[in-house]
Amino acid sequence: MTHATADDKLQLGGEVFSSRLITGTGGAPSLDILEAALVASGTEMTTVAMRRLNPRTTGSVLDLLRKLGIRPLPNTAGCYTAGEAVLTARLAREALETDWVKVEVVADERTLLPDTVELVDAAERLVDDGFVVLAYTNDDPVVARRLEQVGCAAVMPLGSPIGSGLGIRNPHNIRLITEQATVPVVLDAGIGTASDAALAMELGCDAVMLASAVTRAQEPALMAAAMRSAVDGGRLAYRAGRIPMRHYAEASSPTDGLAEIPAF
Amino acid sequence: MTHATADDKLQLGGEVFSSRLITGTGGAPSLDILEAALVASGTEMTTVAMRRLNPRTTGSVLDLLRKLGIRPLPNTAGCYTAGEAVLTARLAREALETDWVKVEVVADERTLLPDTVELVDAAERLVDDGFVVLAYTNDDPVVARRLEQVGCAAVMPLGSPIGSGLGIRNPHNIRLITEQATVPVVLDAGIGTASDAALAMELGCDAVMLASAVTRAQEPALMAAAMRSAVDGGRLAYRAGRIPMRHYAEASSPTDGLAEIPAF
Amino acid sequence: MTHATADDKLQLGGEVFSSRLITGTGGAPSLDILEAALVASGTEMTTVAMRRLNPRTTGSVLDLLRKLGIRPLPNTAGCYTAGEAVLTARLAREALETDWVKVEVVADERTLLPDTVELVDAAERLVDDGFVVLAYTNDDPVVARRLEQVGCAAVMPLGSPIGSGLGIRNPHNIRLITEQATVPVVLDAGIGTASDAALAMELGCDAVMLASAVTRAQEPALMAAAMRSAVDGGRLAYRAGRIPMRHYAEASSPTDGLAEIPAF
Amino acid sequence: MTHATADDKLQLGGEVFSSRLITGTGGAPSLDILEAALVASGTEMTTVAMRRLNPRTTGSVLDLLRKLGIRPLPNTAGCYTAGEAVLTARLAREALETDWVKVEVVADERTLLPDTVELVDAAERLVDDGFVVLAYTNDDPVVARRLEQVGCAAVMPLGSPIGSGLGIRNPHNIRLITEQATVPVVLDAGIGTASDAALAMELGCDAVMLASAVTRAQEPALMAAAMRSAVDGGRLAYRAGRIPMRHYAEASSPTDGLAEIPAF
Repeated sequence: MTHATADDKLQLGGEVFSSRLITGTGGAPSLDILEAALVASGTEMTTVAMRRLNPRTTGSVLDLLRKLGIRPLPNTAGCYTAGEAVLTARLAREALETDWVKVEVVADERTLLPDTVELVDAAERLVDDGFVVLAYTNDDPVVARRLEQVGCAAVMPLGSPIGSGLGIRNPHNIRLITEQATVPVVLDAGIGTASDAALAMELGCDAVMLASAVTRAQEPALMAAAMRSAVDGGRLAYRAGRIPMRHYAEASSPTDGLAEIPAF
Repeated sequence: MTHATADDKLQLGGEVFSSRLITGTGGAPSLDILEAALVASGTEMTTVAMRRLNPRTTGSVLDLLRKLGIRPLPNTAGCYTAGEAVLTARLAREALETDWVKVEVVADERTLLPDTVELVDAAERLVDDGFVVLAYTNDDPVVARRLEQVGCAAVMPLGSPIGSGLGIRNPHNIRLITEQATVPVVLDAGIGTASDAALAMELGCDAVMLASAVTRAQEPALMAAAMRSAVDGGRLAYRAGRIPMRHYAEASSPTDGLAEIPAF
Repeated sequence: MTHATADDKLQLGGEVFSSRLITGTGGAPSLDILEAALVASGTEMTTVAMRRLNPRTTGSVLDLLRKLGIRPLPNTAGCYTAGEAVLTARLAREALETDWVKVEVVADERTLLPDTVELVDAAERLVDDGFVVLAYTNDDPVVARRLEQVGCAAVMPLGSPIGSGLGIRNPHNIRLITEQATVPVVLDAGIGTASDAALAMELGCDAVMLASAVTRAQEPALMAAAMRSAVDGGRLAYRAGRIPMRHYAEASSPTDGLAEIPAF
Repeated sequence: MTHATADDKLQLGGEVFSSRLITGTGGAPSLDILEAALVASGTEMTTVAMRRLNPRTTGSVLDLLRKLGIRPLPNTAGCYTAGEAVLTARLAREALETDWVKVEVVADERTLLPDTVELVDAAERLVDDGFVVLAYTNDDPVVARRLEQVGCAAVMPLGSPIGSGLGIRNPHNIRLITEQATVPVVLDAGIGTASDAALAMELGCDAVMLASAVTRAQEPALMAAAMRSAVDGGRLAYRAGRIPMRHYAEASSPTDGLAEIPAF
């Protein structure tokens, strides 16, 4: 695997990553379990919610990331307006000394779907303010393009609602997004299992972001390893060029000139 | 990965395998490319068609397998009756000095779908004759159970027609098969890309068998590596216990007690 | 609708039907509700289970069918061997004075999936015995062809397990069956809602058979009307020749020569 | 059918419709064929593109609608900004003497996907200007709610890109939209065949809008009849309350107390 992926790094926001799996920390039952999962995932960047305080895990999440050498990516989870998101991003910049931010502006608690009008506004303001902006968005190719136009470093379309585990509900839209994008596309939200992550990569995404699928799995570290393999597998398959689909069968070898026994 | 999979070997026909990927050789453009793909796949067992002679590749396929330390698994591809399949298996046993056989009895050239009546007959006769029988079958749980009852060492349901690349057309049936099986289930035929292989494992299959998806890919060795990762990922996800699907979102962290900045 | 369908009758077993919807009676909460549903469905043929006695409804089901002028089609539900099915069919022939039979031979109670080996055997014997045989089978094109070869008047592949409401799990197989069939294909089992029935017809089936989807719906008569419309709609769509699928959009009108206002 | 649907009219913009199928005219090969299709569809409202001039059909489209007693619904197809859409709507109001408008603001010619930022802006301005606004939008529940909030009389989410025939790519989103909507939801764009239209209604849509699926079918009038039946069927199924999906089978009758022959 090392060999096949060594020349295939992810370039994002002017930096280079070996791992194409970005993780979140929410939902982990304990710091120990989170640590094991992060290590198993091979991730190099992990989001941290600036507006949340989970007494069980958040307290030392940043310490843990520092220990593991994983870059923290502050997000604006829990923000409902562009104004809130911009403020949260600025607080994060001061606190974490990073100008990277994953901007989320959600519309309601039931679906946690992005409010794309507020999102585009927030993204534009943050780019103007010097941030490296990764934008969590819906799967609308038009919104994705707009986010790119206002200067986002990456677009992060959802597969399905956050935490739903429904996978990629509309692969067609994700393909339309990756076809047109000139910045990295990170499939974010909705991943339930390994094949979802592989599919995301096969559709041309440059990376996958997930949290609950790992942290809430029955065995988080095992699922983290699963996601790592699946992201690698999907990426390799994308690069390898899959066979076309056929309505009928095709024998894997010519059947003309059948001989009873091969010549060996 | 090594760590996570070390205690999770495939037991099949009284033998133990570290790899859960079984490959075929048909469709490879050259022996060199086949060799690179086999190595990248990490496979430990590869089928060989006893009734075919592909002048480009078959001649030295067995030499190649010997060199790579990969176990050859003769198949009965191209047989349309139980009688032909039994005869072919016996010729293979003499020629390859193995009593393992993948039994295929197909119904027609257009679909290459198994003729399950002939198949069950052939399997039963081969078991009686001392063979270790792996049976390529349709995705009917009733036929799978019957094959198990006549003594097959593994059942190999198709995902879709051979070479079609259509993936797993009926995951529900594959699940019904794996739920009931007491011998290994190997998803065989129809795999098109990495996420298909991951899904097979998530459905509870014990291994995946494929040929065209790798040998006919634009870059066979890369796709072989993809399949290896995807099979690992799918297996790990199966063991890890995925999150349930939800209709609505679920925040990855509690949002009660939101604080502006995490305590760090 | 009458106009469009008047010249498109179903020919099956030497008879002609205006309705392409065959219904069952099982699961109806009362005879009155069953009657309303049968009328709303427009069906001309309804199965009757010979081996069942549902004290609430079966007693007078045959009276009801007689009153409504609906042809009873005895089935062999509950039979697990060819022998049982043949015996049941013969009892039905005497009791109902019809040589039509829907032959079912199931493998187990959990899935109610057909045992195709027993099924083919039963079908062959019943054809030899002068029956007009409609065979409930899995969705394997090879078995469908075999049933046709032994003389069945119709093949009835399942969409998914009986009563599951899972719809058509493998449209690809149903298409393979309808492409090759020279006798009517009736999609049987698994229909959950109207769009499932429409899809069956679009795949080239000649009719749809269902019971639970109507009798267990919250409002059986309304669902019966739904199924009638959906079967009509699906059949018409099949005949009308649908548009191809495209990856991108296509404007519904030329946009060259745009004018501000149409000439009217 | 009349019976079952008589009490189930569509209320939209303060008016009542018996038909839940809204059609377009684009793509029809001739006025005669268009007429036959419109009649077969049973539609009561048909869109007219104000910015297009198709020499073959548009000239007399309005005459045809007048003759058939079908309400014309001007749309703003071909507009790329809110300003263009508002202008086009006003021209249409003068020309057609209707204050109803289907507002479309598309982002590009390749996908014809709506630009939702411009769309919301246009919708708001048109509502303020006294229009009854039906808004063609993407399948984002948040945008749908926003359109409702600015006063749209109906939201018209797409199933897939215009003219693509890809059906409903994301049923989950359509369901989220219909669950929350307090104005009618009209599935617009992407319908390919009858089962797509039935599914739209089963998901809780109040009506279906389509053009190419009928006008470009091999037999437009037959497909129009198909769509009419499918919309009816889907609506009835929605009202009837479908059976739940089950993983395993459920016999349609109790099998306890099996008797050899029913009591008749």
